[in-house]
Amino acid sequence: MISLSETLARIHSPDRGLLTRAQERLDRLTKPQGSLGRLEELAAQYSMITGELKPAAPRGAVFTFAADHGVAMEGVSAYPREVTRQMVLNFLRGGAGVNVLARHAGAEVRVVDIGVAYDFEVAPGLIHKKIMPGTNNFLLGPAMSREQAERAVLVGAELATEAVEGGIGLIGTGDMGIGNTTASSAITAVMTGRPVADVTGRGTGIDEAAHARKVAVIEQALARHRPNRMDAMDVLSKVGGLEIAGLAGLMLGAAAARVPVVLDGFIAGAAALIAVALQPRCREYLIASHRSVERGHQALLDHLHLTPLLDLDLRLGEGTGACLGMSLVVAAVKIMTEMATFGEAGVSERDM
Amino acid sequence: MISLSETLARIHSPDRGLLTRAQERLDRLTKPQGSLGRLEELAAQYSMITGELKPAAPRGAVFTFAADHGVAMEGVSAYPREVTRQMVLNFLRGGAGVNVLARHAGAEVRVVDIGVAYDFEVAPGLIHKKIMPGTNNFLLGPAMSREQAERAVLVGAELATEAVEGGIGLIGTGDMGIGNTTASSAITAVMTGRPVADVTGRGTGIDEAAHARKVAVIEQALARHRPNRMDAMDVLSKVGGLEIAGLAGLMLGAAAARVPVVLDGFIAGAAALIAVALQPRCREYLIASHRSVERGHQALLDHLHLTPLLDLDLRLGEGTGACLGMSLVVAAVKIMTEMATFGEAGVSERDM
Repeated sequence: MISLSETLARIHSPDRGLLTRAQERLDRLTKPQGSLGRLEELAAQYSMITGELKPAAPRGAVFTFAADHGVAMEGVSAYPREVTRQMVLNFLRGGAGVNVLARHAGAEVRVVDIGVAYDFEVAPGLIHKKIMPGTNNFLLGPAMSREQAERAVLVGAELATEAVEGGIGLIGTGDMGIGNTTASSAITAVMTGRPVADVTGRGTGIDEAAHARKVAVIEQALARHRPNRMDAMDVLSKVGGLEIAGLAGLMLGAAAARVPVVLDGFIAGAAALIAVALQPRCREYLIASHRSVERGHQALLDHLHLTPLLDLDLRLGEGTGACLGMSLVVAAVKIMTEMATFGEAGVSERDM
Repeated sequence: MISLSETLARIHSPDRGLLTRAQERLDRLTKPQGSLGRLEELAAQYSMITGELKPAAPRGAVFTFAADHGVAMEGVSAYPREVTRQMVLNFLRGGAGVNVLARHAGAEVRVVDIGVAYDFEVAPGLIHKKIMPGTNNFLLGPAMSREQAERAVLVGAELATEAVEGGIGLIGTGDMGIGNTTASSAITAVMTGRPVADVTGRGTGIDEAAHARKVAVIEQALARHRPNRMDAMDVLSKVGGLEIAGLAGLMLGAAAARVPVVLDGFIAGAAALIAVALQPRCREYLIASHRSVERGHQALLDHLHLTPLLDLDLRLGEGTGACLGMSLVVAAVKIMTEMATFGEAGVSERDM
C-alpha cells in the first residue's frame, strides 16, 4: 500500500495542449464546429486526462461507500440509522436506484462498507473495508481520529488504483450514510467559509424544526472543534464521515491513475473539497454530474469551479446522478471516436 | 391511410389520474419521496401517456427527416445546400452524430427523405417519402402548397403509426435540412407572436451580416405572405419546411398511438408549435430533451409550456439531443419497474 503523500505526489497536472489537439479532431467531424457543446468539452477533457486522442469507450464503475454517522442520533435525519445497513443489502441485491441507473449506463456498482454500524457476516459482493462501526457523534467529540481519517482516505485511493488496474476507465462516486448531509454541510461551511445555515439543507426530507436542529448541531460542533480549513485532514476527522473520506481517497487514487471521476451530488462534493484541498491538481480530473437540490451544493461547486452537466432536481445520492453523468461521458467519448470526419464522409465544409 | 382530421380526432387527453397512481408506486420505492426529481416526473408522464403502471423499457426510434429549403439560396446558412444529401448518406452509413448517440441510447435511426433536392437511387435503409425536391424559396412565393404540406404531415403520422405497430414505444425527432432554422424561426415568430429578430439565431454558425440577411428575409416573407397564425397549415405551407411538416405529423401520429415523443431542438420545437396548434391535446405527449443554443428555442418552449431535460449547449440537430433525452426516459421507466419497494427490500420508512 502506498502512502497518502505518495498518492498526492503521483497526481500530475494534465497536459492542456491535449485539449487543443482533441478539439482539432472534434472540429474535423461531420458537424458544425462546437455544435455538440458540452459533449465536445467532455470529450476533450477525457482526452486531456487520459492522454488518448482516440480513446476506447471506457468501462465504468460506481463506488458506493457506506458508513454510519454518530451525529445521526441528534435527530438530524428523516430516516432511522438502520437504513444505512438495510440499503447496503438493497445495493447488493440490485434493487436500489443506483443499481438501476448503473445497469442503464452500462457501469458496475461496487459497494464498500467503510464504516457501517453493523457486522455484515455473509454479504456476497460487499467490499469489507470497515475502519470503525460508524463515526463518533461530532457534537460531543471529533468524528474520528486523524489516523482513522487517513486510513479511510487510503482505502478509497487503493480501491481506485485496483479498479484501474482491472480495466476500469471511468469512476463514479456514490454514498450511503444516514446523517451524511450533516457531515457534508459541516465540511462545506468550513472549506468554503460560508455560514452554516447557507449550506445546510433538508437532506432526505426533514421538517423545519429538524432543519433548525441540524444547523445548530453543526454550528456547535464547529465552535467546539474549530477545524482548521488549511488542514483538510483536520476538518475531515473532526466533522467528516468515513464514506466522505473514502470518496476523497477514491478521487485522489483515480487522478493519480489518470482516470476521470464523475461526482454524484452533495456528499461527493464535500469529499471533493477535501480531495482538492489535499491536492489541488486533483480538480482537473473531476466531472460534476448534476446540481443537487440540496442547499449548499451550488456553493461547493462554485468553490471548486465545477459546472454540473445535469440539473434534474435529484437528491437521492447513492451514485444515481453519477451514473447519468457517466453515460454522458461515454457518449462524448463515442462522439470523438465513432463519428465520421468531413473527409471520410464526403461532406462539404462550411462555405462562409 | 387515415386522414389528418381522423388522426387529430384519435388523440385523447391522457388520464391525469394515472399520474397520481404512478407517483404512488414511485413513493413506495426505496428512496426518499421525490428524491429522483425529474426522473420521477418523467416516469409518471410515461405511465400517464401509455396507461401502463409497470411498463417495460420501451424500444426507441429516432426519425430523422431530411429536406431542402428553397430559401437556402438567399445565403441564410453557413453550409452549401448539397450538405443535406451528403448528410443523408452519412446517416445511412452510421457516421453522423445522431447515429453515434442513438446507438449509445439503444435506439434506432430511421432516415426519411421527405424532400431532399436529390434523387437517391440506391440508398439502402432510406425511407423514400419525397413530397417534392425541396421547398420553394419562400422569399418569392409560398414554400409549398397547402396540399403538399398536408401530405407531408400525413407521411409523418403514418410513419409513427407503423413504428408503434412494429413495437416502438418511444419516438424521437430528428431533422436535416440546410436552411431549416430559417423556416423554423419564421414559424416561431408567427406562432408565438414574437418579433423575428428575437427568435432568429445563428443556425450552423453564420456571421453577423448573414444573420441580418436571415432576419430580413424572414420579415419580408412574413410581410408578403401574411400567414394566419390561427391556421397552422397556412403557416406551415407558406414559410415552413417538408421535414418540419413530417415532424409535426410524427408527433400527431405518436400521440394518437399513445406513445411519447422526445423532441430534439429548435426545428422540432417549430414542428411542435404546428402540431399543438392542430391538436392542443398533442402537447401532453411531448417531452423536450434539451434547451438549444439557437435563439428562439426558449421562446418556443415557453409558448408550449415545456421544460427541457438537458442544457448542454447543443445546436447540431439531427436528433442528437433527442437521443440523450430518450435515454433519460428509458432510465426513468426502469426506475419505476426495476427498483425494489420498501417492503420488498425490508428497508425502514421515514420516522419523522
